[in-house]
Amino acid sequence: VITGAEARHIARVLRHRPGDRVRVTDGRGTEYQLELAEVRHEKVTGLVRARAANLREPRHRLTLALAALKGEKLVQACEQAAELGISEFLPFRSERTIARLSPARVERLRHVAVSALKSSTRTVLPAIGEPVDLSALIRRVPEFDQSLVAYEEETGVGLERVLNRSAKSVLAIVGPEGGFAPEEIDRLRAAGVVSFSLGPRRLRAETAAVSVVAGVLQLLGDLG
Amino acid sequence: VITGAEARHIARVLRHRPGDRVRVTDGRGTEYQLELAEVRHEKVTGLVRARAANLREPRHRLTLALAALKGEKLVQACEQAAELGISEFLPFRSERTIARLSPARVERLRHVAVSALKSSTRTVLPAIGEPVDLSALIRRVPEFDQSLVAYEEETGVGLERVLNRSAKSVLAIVGPEGGFAPEEIDRLRAAGVVSFSLGPRRLRAETAAVSVVAGVLQLLGDLG
Repeated sequence: VITGAEARHIARVLRHRPGDRVRVTDGRGTEYQLELAEVRHEKVTGLVRARAANLREPRHRLTLALAALKGEKLVQACEQAAELGISEFLPFRSERTIARLSPARVERLRHVAVSALKSSTRTVLPAIGEPVDLSALIRRVPEFDQSLVAYEEETGVGLERVLNRSAKSVLAIVGPEGGFAPEEIDRLRAAGVVSFSLGPRRLRAETAAVSVVAGVLQLLGDLG
Repeated sequence: VITGAEARHIARVLRHRPGDRVRVTDGRGTEYQLELAEVRHEKVTGLVRARAANLREPRHRLTLALAALKGEKLVQACEQAAELGISEFLPFRSERTIARLSPARVERLRHVAVSALKSSTRTVLPAIGEPVDLSALIRRVPEFDQSLVAYEEETGVGLERVLNRSAKSVLAIVGPEGGFAPEEIDRLRAAGVVSFSLGPRRLRAETAAVSVVAGVLQLLGDLG
């Protein structure tokens, strides 16, 4: 049984009829082939004719923790990271983070994650975390096999050198436009987070975020 | 001697005075330390106190050939690729390319390249090519040590497998939203272009473009 926006989409936009077959996902890794029985704007029902698990999903869990950027930059980075295959998007506040993340902006990120799931044909919906501060971010570190932070003052040690290829779960942290304060990097390192360089050119935070996600997934064999 | 928009920027926005030291680049790899002598809105003059070559530039030449995407997507991809370190951005038309590239849009891309050079502190300005069709793109292939194309029908052969690590110059081709027609891929392959996969998830063209640029530069050791 499908209700809400997706029912309206099936009925009004895709104009499906009873008897049509559609592929739907629960966003938790299962894809269903449905044979539609009833198609109404507010409710669509169908019979499950086939199901498959974790199609087209990375084998590794990658959480992108990104400083709350201003305006559309955060949305853009979230969307691109969701397409590429992250499991979770976690916005955080730090000393040099200027932007506010209202509940409405977090809700917007959740919508973007759904649309990225559809456009990329993923079957797992990336979780959008509630914004956290650096202390709460650091408390998450033990959940992951490896935690990494892109640091602009780091020299010469790239992602390829530091990434642990046998990690099953990775936390990748990308700071705000103004970078991390030195004491913030000290706290991250003390918690076991490994810093790495994205090279000598200064990247905007959203470019850094997408490069890190693509880089980690590529090096782990999850991008082709 | 600096004139035009950059002179106005130095005089009006940065409000420099005679005697101040500024770093400027010719966009061809040389960075100069200038001691300003005269600062006017239409003309700034200074004495070269130091110069350095190819600071913060990748050791490899990477040309990104990207299908002409609609609206801001092309601008965004050009900007991010320019920050990351491409040498040249080459928009092209293919069978399933819908967008038009007016001279005004090409001019816009040139402005974006200049602003990406400044924000990323590069010293080489990426060239923005005039839009070409697939035949003209194929004629460029012999200029490069290796030419690659991201192809969504390719399975299991990722960038890491196909990239020639000893290539000094790489042409990376990313198609339009609708993908390449099979006969276009045949023509590219016949010209020696190697196809590779970005994985089973469907990426929007601008996400694919940034991922390919970050991936090639990372694997060649030019991203940290």
